Amino acid sequence: MKYLHGQPHALPGHRAALAGYAARHFLFAVEEGVATVTLNRPERKNPLTFESYAELRDLFRALAHADDVKAVVVAGAGDDFCSGGDVHEIIGPLTRLDMPGLLAFTRLTGDVVKAMRACPQPVIAAVDGICAGAGAMLALASDIRHGTERSKTAFLFTRVGLAGCDMGACALLPRVIGQGRAAELLYTGRSMSGLEGERWGFFNALHAPEALPGAAQELARALARGPTFAHGMTKKMLQQEWNMGIDEAIEAEAQAQAICMATNDFHRAYHAFVAKQKPAFEGD
Amino acid sequence: MKYLHGQPHALPGHRAALAGYAARHFLFAVEEGVATVTLNRPERKNPLTFESYAELRDLFRALAHADDVKAVVVAGAGDDFCSGGDVHEIIGPLTRLDMPGLLAFTRLTGDVVKAMRACPQPVIAAVDGICAGAGAMLALASDIRHGTERSKTAFLFTRVGLAGCDMGACALLPRVIGQGRAAELLYTGRSMSGLEGERWGFFNALHAPEALPGAAQELARALARGPTFAHGMTKKMLQQEWNMGIDEAIEAEAQAQAICMATNDFHRAYHAFVAKQKPAFEGD
Amino acid sequence: MKYLHGQPHALPGHRAALAGYAARHFLFAVEEGVATVTLNRPERKNPLTFESYAELRDLFRALAHADDVKAVVVAGAGDDFCSGGDVHEIIGPLTRLDMPGLLAFTRLTGDVVKAMRACPQPVIAAVDGICAGAGAMLALASDIRHGTERSKTAFLFTRVGLAGCDMGACALLPRVIGQGRAAELLYTGRSMSGLEGERWGFFNALHAPEALPGAAQELARALARGPTFAHGMTKKMLQQEWNMGIDEAIEAEAQAQAICMATNDFHRAYHAFVAKQKPAFEGD
Repeated sequence: MKYLHGQPHALPGHRAALAGYAARHFLFAVEEGVATVTLNRPERKNPLTFESYAELRDLFRALAHADDVKAVVVAGAGDDFCSGGDVHEIIGPLTRLDMPGLLAFTRLTGDVVKAMRACPQPVIAAVDGICAGAGAMLALASDIRHGTERSKTAFLFTRVGLAGCDMGACALLPRVIGQGRAAELLYTGRSMSGLEGERWGFFNALHAPEALPGAAQELARALARGPTFAHGMTKKMLQQEWNMGIDEAIEAEAQAQAICMATNDFHRAYHAFVAKQKPAFEGD
Repeated sequence: MKYLHGQPHALPGHRAALAGYAARHFLFAVEEGVATVTLNRPERKNPLTFESYAELRDLFRALAHADDVKAVVVAGAGDDFCSGGDVHEIIGPLTRLDMPGLLAFTRLTGDVVKAMRACPQPVIAAVDGICAGAGAMLALASDIRHGTERSKTAFLFTRVGLAGCDMGACALLPRVIGQGRAAELLYTGRSMSGLEGERWGFFNALHAPEALPGAAQELARALARGPTFAHGMTKKMLQQEWNMGIDEAIEAEAQAQAICMATNDFHRAYHAFVAKQKPAFEGD
Repeated sequence: MKYLHGQPHALPGHRAALAGYAARHFLFAVEEGVATVTLNRPERKNPLTFESYAELRDLFRALAHADDVKAVVVAGAGDDFCSGGDVHEIIGPLTRLDMPGLLAFTRLTGDVVKAMRACPQPVIAAVDGICAGAGAMLALASDIRHGTERSKTAFLFTRVGLAGCDMGACALLPRVIGQGRAAELLYTGRSMSGLEGERWGFFNALHAPEALPGAAQELARALARGPTFAHGMTKKMLQQEWNMGIDEAIEAEAQAQAICMATNDFHRAYHAFVAKQKPAFEGD
């Protein structure tokens, strides 16, 4: 195979493991290739702060180069996912910023979504309880969402006098639950129940609250077993083809899939199949 | 706040109240900031005519500059929403037009949809009974749709030998109910029942026929209480991001939301929250 | 009508009937204007081969010029739709190809989808049993899908170490069932049940297995009765407007519908309506 050469993992660019990363504004752990980000101020329903936005942005950017992380779970401590930007710690200070300062903030929050969608690992949100504002956007920016019946997801920017266009909501939400339902949620800021979320395609599945963390981990571990290079390509193309014409998308996929067919994982799958075994993917 | 100055409502461009507007081809009324457009030929199921298309286009264009209207309800008199272009008053004359005349007509009807989506007020369709052809497009061009179980929505262009691509149907319908369901409705012209419409995301809610007008008004009044500047931005960005890439959409939202953070309504919401009060939005 | 002239069907370009076409790698028949393509190796669940991909591509390209075919049904022989690319006949040989060879293959499969979407006839997939990999893509590339409860549709590229971006899946599937559900199916390769498929908008309807072929034929024959020129325009515009802005789509539809208003079928429909008859469309 003359197009396969070099050492496994001898990839260009800095590759740095994240397993030892000591997060400052949330909990972070890596186990069996799954990084779990846990927002951790349960007594306030896990709000976001200027510092946690920035650290989330930096973490997801670092994930693009993290060899040891193959899938990501985003969750909240306690009974809630995330209450969004804190009124006292975020909204108050924002009312005192000038325009360059405001734009720096909205770009910061947008950069979190950009980084979540640019990292090659699939991101799974485990959503229980309150999932509001920027918290709802963290869930929406994930690839797959698992929830609970009692979860309440609200794009409540309108409640603080703002527009529904925050962190990509007007682009992403209509493609997940449909344009009409998205418009209602964004204009009114009302909560979407867990059952509505599952019915509308926001949640891929609902679980009992106590079963939610395990279900999210189980799915993440399955994805972490690979084929991770191919998963990264799936994620890239879902992003890339967002606003392509169909014929252009088909050509883009022809190229992307030809690349995947040149990986060892494709060969491993074939040989495992012939040997009636389960393939062990290695990500190269 | 150096970027906030001038008098409230001292906006560039002509601002003209619409409360006194005497509509000629439908009923029109403004109450509590809600403009209600009622198609009013119930004995014919409220068909559209050349004149009513033109007046609807002009009205929705004027709404872009109407200070006194904060939300719009579109409804039909009696038990039906709208039967679309009348066969005798529209289809017949069309068969006698030359190509420039035909294109002038299809652009006229398309301009109604463009104007409905360009005005900053959220538009709520209240759909009972027959909702057919161009009438179905008026509902689809609205931001939010409330219906009844007995409503019948049909994109029946195919029944008169025409294509499903009318007034934007092939762009809008797939994003509201999904590409596969839209294709079926557009190829076959069959009726979508109220229950299907709710299940598929066409209708945001169903009501008993007698409760429909009140429900649509209640939602419109809630939206009219604001924040109206932000609602207008939500509507603008839902339109604007239709075919943007995700990263470009996120940057566009960063700018749009920074603008909203420079409004007084954002400050009002914050101060109301701190004072444990409900904010009173003023639209500036 | 000065813009209507010439003989019916005296269209530029080569027009060739397909009724007598002797297919080599699947069954092919034309009846009442409906072409039925039946994948026919039921003992292997109707897999695809290099040869059948190429013949499907050529057939759908030829359909663009086939006067005698007005609608298409794609089905599988026996109890399954299609198991996709055969592991021994496709995957094995692919592992021995160089990069130009791989790209030639992925472009071949993509060309099948391009041709299915470029032919003017609506394509209806009749899906029972296994519908997997490239088979799932044949169903997805169709305009309308009818299924059975027991059908199992799986985009299982990931199971052979490949990405979900195959033949346009990352573009098409999100628009049919929503971005979140599509992501799950493409990352995990899990089967979508018939009931899920109907609930999510992948299937337009479910039938008992024995009723499926008849239901698909009945719908195809209804569409074949026309207006076929208009149906071809609906299909073209659903494709064309995929990534247009809304205002541009509305102008594109104004032009496309004005063309349809210049057809005899539009006039036939009007005169039939006035005479209280059912129109007999002729496709010109």
